[in-house]
Order: sequence, then structure tokens, then C-alpha cells
Amino acid sequence: MTAGTQNGSVGIVVPQTAHFEEPLLLACGRSLPSFDLVFETYGTLNPQRSNAVLVCHALSGHHHAAGYHSESDTKPGWWDECIGPGKPIDTERFFVVSLNNLGGCHGSTGPCSPNPETGKPWGPDFPPLRARDWVNSQARLADRLGIGCWAAVIGGSLGGMQAMRWSLEYPERVQHCIVIASALKLSAQNIAFNEIARQAIESDPDFAGGRYLEQGLTPSRGLGLARMIGHVTYLSDDAMANKFGRDLRSGTFEHGQEAAVEFQVESYLRHQGSQFSGNFDANTYILMTHALDYFDLAREYNNDPVEAFRRAQCSFLVLSFSTDWRFSPERSREIVEALIAAQKPVTYADIAADEGHDAFLLPLPRYLDVFGSYMSRVGEQH
Amino acid sequence: MTAGTQNGSVGIVVPQTAHFEEPLLLACGRSLPSFDLVFETYGTLNPQRSNAVLVCHALSGHHHAAGYHSESDTKPGWWDECIGPGKPIDTERFFVVSLNNLGGCHGSTGPCSPNPETGKPWGPDFPPLRARDWVNSQARLADRLGIGCWAAVIGGSLGGMQAMRWSLEYPERVQHCIVIASALKLSAQNIAFNEIARQAIESDPDFAGGRYLEQGLTPSRGLGLARMIGHVTYLSDDAMANKFGRDLRSGTFEHGQEAAVEFQVESYLRHQGSQFSGNFDANTYILMTHALDYFDLAREYNNDPVEAFRRAQCSFLVLSFSTDWRFSPERSREIVEALIAAQKPVTYADIAADEGHDAFLLPLPRYLDVFGSYMSRVGEQH
Repeated sequence: MTAGTQNGSVGIVVPQTAHFEEPLLLACGRSLPSFDLVFETYGTLNPQRSNAVLVCHALSGHHHAAGYHSESDTKPGWWDECIGPGKPIDTERFFVVSLNNLGGCHGSTGPCSPNPETGKPWGPDFPPLRARDWVNSQARLADRLGIGCWAAVIGGSLGGMQAMRWSLEYPERVQHCIVIASALKLSAQNIAFNEIARQAIESDPDFAGGRYLEQGLTPSRGLGLARMIGHVTYLSDDAMANKFGRDLRSGTFEHGQEAAVEFQVESYLRHQGSQFSGNFDANTYILMTHALDYFDLAREYNNDPVEAFRRAQCSFLVLSFSTDWRFSPERSREIVEALIAAQKPVTYADIAADEGHDAFLLPLPRYLDVFGSYMSRVGEQH
Repeated sequence: MTAGTQNGSVGIVVPQTAHFEEPLLLACGRSLPSFDLVFETYGTLNPQRSNAVLVCHALSGHHHAAGYHSESDTKPGWWDECIGPGKPIDTERFFVVSLNNLGGCHGSTGPCSPNPETGKPWGPDFPPLRARDWVNSQARLADRLGIGCWAAVIGGSLGGMQAMRWSLEYPERVQHCIVIASALKLSAQNIAFNEIARQAIESDPDFAGGRYLEQGLTPSRGLGLARMIGHVTYLSDDAMANKFGRDLRSGTFEHGQEAAVEFQVESYLRHQGSQFSGNFDANTYILMTHALDYFDLAREYNNDPVEAFRRAQCSFLVLSFSTDWRFSPERSREIVEALIAAQKPVTYADIAADEGHDAFLLPLPRYLDVFGSYMSRVGEQH
């Protein structure tokens, strides 16, 4: 089935680039003199400019969240299950903006872009970013598009962290904040997995201290390993059991055959790793995982999430998935508890799902129902 | 505190080597023409030769399970918490045998040993092993020591798999089988983590296709990564939170400092990784993780663990730890259910512990109590 015949699809979409000349002061104290943001939009901005929705992407995401890039394109955007006509983020109703974050590797300014001071790729010299830097750059994009206030800012995982940060940094510019499978901050275990992924990348000799582009190298083994680690931890034990069990791809356990034994899950992981390493930039992966680790919603609010959320003026929807062990329901409930204590309107649902953290990308009926009905309410306010 | 002053210690121990000239037919169909096993013993074999206990080690273990190797040695054997006078495996009562498994890298014949056909290290050509091969080689060691029947065969994790295999392969030679934090077979998630560890090792250029010894190389980055993955997954989320939280080792989140931010858990992991890679052999790690993956107690018994356990003639103690997510309590309960259905005597306890899979190495009071009181009953039978 190709783009044109998909039901509920936004159809063919064309990425756009916004160039910003005014320097952006970053949380690290450095400034980006100028930058580009690549983005896509789906649906139509209403005359009151009140129906705009911002979609924030997670670790390995980008601007292409829905629809297709050409008639022959068979793979839609990464959140096509949730964005489109009649879907939870209904493009008949909302004007959806989805961008590639600063520091990304899909067209926005990032480690692959030329450093204006040297003319060479930024590589490891690209400034470290925090979620608030993304929020500030996204606010610039909102200004450019003439969007004073988002009907909703929405994100899963690292995207949910950006959505929460929006509610604190620009309280008057967000009406609804939708936080899916996210957390107030990462646990030590989460940081540990991210650190192993970074170590895998950095110990690949082809990483060359991060200057692989200049040297015509690609640290594909390290990046592949990093992806495998992410992939296993974003799935639940049950999901992997259902998907692969102990099925063999090759070999048997008969005499003399052990060397050839290969489980399905092994070849699947290797395939995932090698695919990813062809499509993603290693320095971006390092930058994004650091942003995840550094995120701590309440750090500047006396480490008190209740005090932090008191700044917010929007309503919240918080969603978690029962078998998600990287961003467990318990983490979502911490968000909810803090919002309740801060006397903010919050709706929470934990969705029973076997698929672990990855569930937030999947068309699970109850998820789509809860998400969709909340978004209907958002839409009725305009 | 040095060796001589430790309470409840077996004191100074001296490893011994047993050489076996008769070829060992392996599950893979190949034979080892001859082999060495390094082992230690603690306590005294009684005249009836009825008080011998075999300790089987896990993935990264070896023969040095208790006591010290010299007066100045500050670090005891890996299971010193459980082996010694007055400890659960009471050396006043039992004669304890602990060996380095075939394929190991601490003195027993393995990938680092010379291949008699080439004179060079076996390396990746060392035959793949299964738990049953270890059991068969351990039976040879029992013969050599004049031990017809073990009072108990005991192991945690991969060691528990060997203990269970003993109960099926040599039912008349085991009186008690003690299976701690183990499973009837690994889950897809477990296999996936092992595969990532192997990929980390094999993609290190210094692995040189497994022939690093011949080339004077050490794949220390890959082996360090493998260890980090193991380490994170053998600890629970709570254990890591208690140990590290989000404490920083260096840097601050103030303006301009991000590049230097390092969490405690990051430096701890790197330290663990680099320590391990100096002490362990990469081919052994690959061999051991494959043995873990391949283990499936009931494969030759119509995939029915009840049918498998019907062969056993011993009593069982099964222990699990509440926060162990690599070998979860659910996996232990599968063992217990099968034993009950096979009408075998079984005692089971799930120990509440924060420390994840690593709990089986720690002196947790309830663990030592349950384990110790079961072992007292074992001792009273002699």
C-alpha cells in the first residue's frame, strides 16, 4: 500500500527549513550564532491561530512524524499511528508542528553541521544541550509560524520531558501538556544504560574522538551496539518472549551443530543495530542521551516538583504503560502526584500493554481511545 | 584485615590441579583429548566420604570461592559469605569442592590453553560447551577425589543450571540439589543481553576474530562493555538508586559546566568494566554466555520439565530474590512447580532483597538463615 491509498493518513508531506539568525543562548552558557530547524506541518492553522499542536520527539526521533515523503514511500512517519485524520492528534482539527530538534541529525543544526568558526563539522564540539534549549528553539519556531499559544505540547519519553519543560518555561504559551511514558528525571539505572551506549560508541576506533566525519569514518559498530541496548531495554521481557521466544533462526542443538546455533532474537538485534547505524549520527546520539540524563524538572525549584509545577498554567494528560520498565508507571505517578499537590488539572491513565516503553508508538486501542478523547476535549476549546 | 584474623574464614587455601588423560566426549560431538581442572577444597572429607559438597560457579566465577590465597590477601573468594566455619556451607561439617569450569580462564583447560594440534592457544576454536559438559567433567573430578555421591550440588545462576543438570545426569550421585537465582532456560530478553555483550566483544578490533592472544592483543574495550551490561542488569533499579542515585562525581549543572558533568554511576561502571577486562578472557566470556543461552533443562525431555525432573532422586532447595529481574522469582517458581508436579521434595523461598541478581552473593540475614538451616538438615543426614 502506498501513500495515496492510506486511510487516515496526512498523505504526502514536505519538510521545511526555518533559518534563525539571532543567536540562541544555551543553558551551558554558550551561544549558537545562528541555526536551522527542519520541520513538517500537518493540518491547517485556523484563522484564530488557536489550534496548533507541537509534537516533541524522543531520543532517536525527527521531524517526520506522519505521512509520506513520496508516492512510492512505504514507511510513514514515526508517529503516524497517532497523527492524521480521525486519529488522536486529528489533523482535521489541529495544525500539527513536528520538528527535528537542535543537535539532531536529520537537517536541523547539529554535530554534523559546519561549525562556522572552522568550516568543519561541529562533531564533538557542538554545545551540550538541555531540554530547555530545545524548548527555547521551539519557541522561536512558534514565533516564526505566528503561534502565540499551543493548544497542546505533546511528547513521549524525552519528548514528554520537553512538554513538561514548556509548561514551566512558557506557562502562558501552553494550554495542554501531554506527557507520555516519561519521568521527572532518569534513575541511576537509566543513566547507566545511556552511559554504556555512549561507551560503546566512544570505544569504536572509527569514532575517532568524535571527528569521524572529517576523517571519512562511521562508528557503525558502536552506534549499532548503542541501538541494540536501547532496543532491548525499550521492549519488555514479555514483548520479547511473545516476539521471539527461544526460536532459532539457524542451527540445531543436535551433536556437532552448536557453533551454528543462532536465536531469532540475535539476528533481529544485529539487523536493528546495523540499520540504525546507517541512519543516525553518533555525536547526536551522545548529545541526546546526555540531555536525557541531565533532565531534572525540579532542579532549579529546590528539587521540589510541586514547586516547579506551580508555575504551570495548563492542563495535563499523563500516560504510562504497564510493562514499561525504563519509564515505569511509578515514574508517571510521581508526575501526577506532584501535579495534584500543585493543584493543577491532571488526567492520568496507565495503559495495560505488553510492549514496554515502545508501546507509546503503537496503535493500542485503549491508548488511542484515552489519548483521542482527551484531544477531542482540547479541540472543543477552539 | 588480613586472612589470618577473619572470623568464620577457611583461612589460606591452595588451588590444586587435576589432570585428566581420558578424552571427554562433549555435547557438540567433539572430544577434548585431555584436560585440566583447577579446584580448591575447604573442610575435611569424612571417612564415609559422605559429606562432600560441590559448588558450581556462574558466568564470571572460578574455583576460588572461599578463603584467601596468602596472608596479605585482602579479598576473599567470591562466595566467602556462604562458605566457612559456621556459615551456610559449614566447613566444620562439609568437605567443599569448588572448581574452575572447563572453558574457564583461571587455570582449567579453556580457550587460553594451547590447542594440542597447533601448539597455539585454542582461542575461538575451543569447542562450544553446554552445562552437561561441565557436569560430566565435574563427575570425573568427583571420581578422582573418591566422591561417589555429593551430599549437595549447589549453584547460583548458571551454577544453578549445572546443579539441576547434575540431578538428571547423575541422579544416584546427588542427595540435595540447591538452585539459587536460576531458571529452566533463559528468556529472549536474557539471550538478547548476552548477544549484545558478545557483539561488544566481537566488534572490538583487538578481538581479532578471537585470535587476540596469538597477536598479543586484548579486547579490553569490548570485554569492559560486556561487563558493564552484565553489571547493570544484575543489579536492580532500586539497588542502583540506593547506591548512586543521581549523585555527581564531578561537574555541576551551572552555566558552562555541562561538558564536565559526570554521574557517580558512570565512573563506577567504567571502573568495573576496566577491572574485569584485566582479569577475564573474552573467548571464555563468549563461551559461557552461549552455554547460558543454550541451556534448556527439558529440551531432551519433550520440553517438559516435569518429565525431566522425574529422573531426579534428590531433594531440592530453590531460592530466588525479589528484585532479581534477570532470573526473576517467577523463573524459580517454574522450577518449583515442575518439581512438585514430578513429586520431588522441594523447599522454596523467595528472599526479599533490593540487590537484584547479585543478592545471591551477599550476606542477607534471611538468605543465610534459610540456606543455613537447609544445609544443617543436609549435614544431619551424615
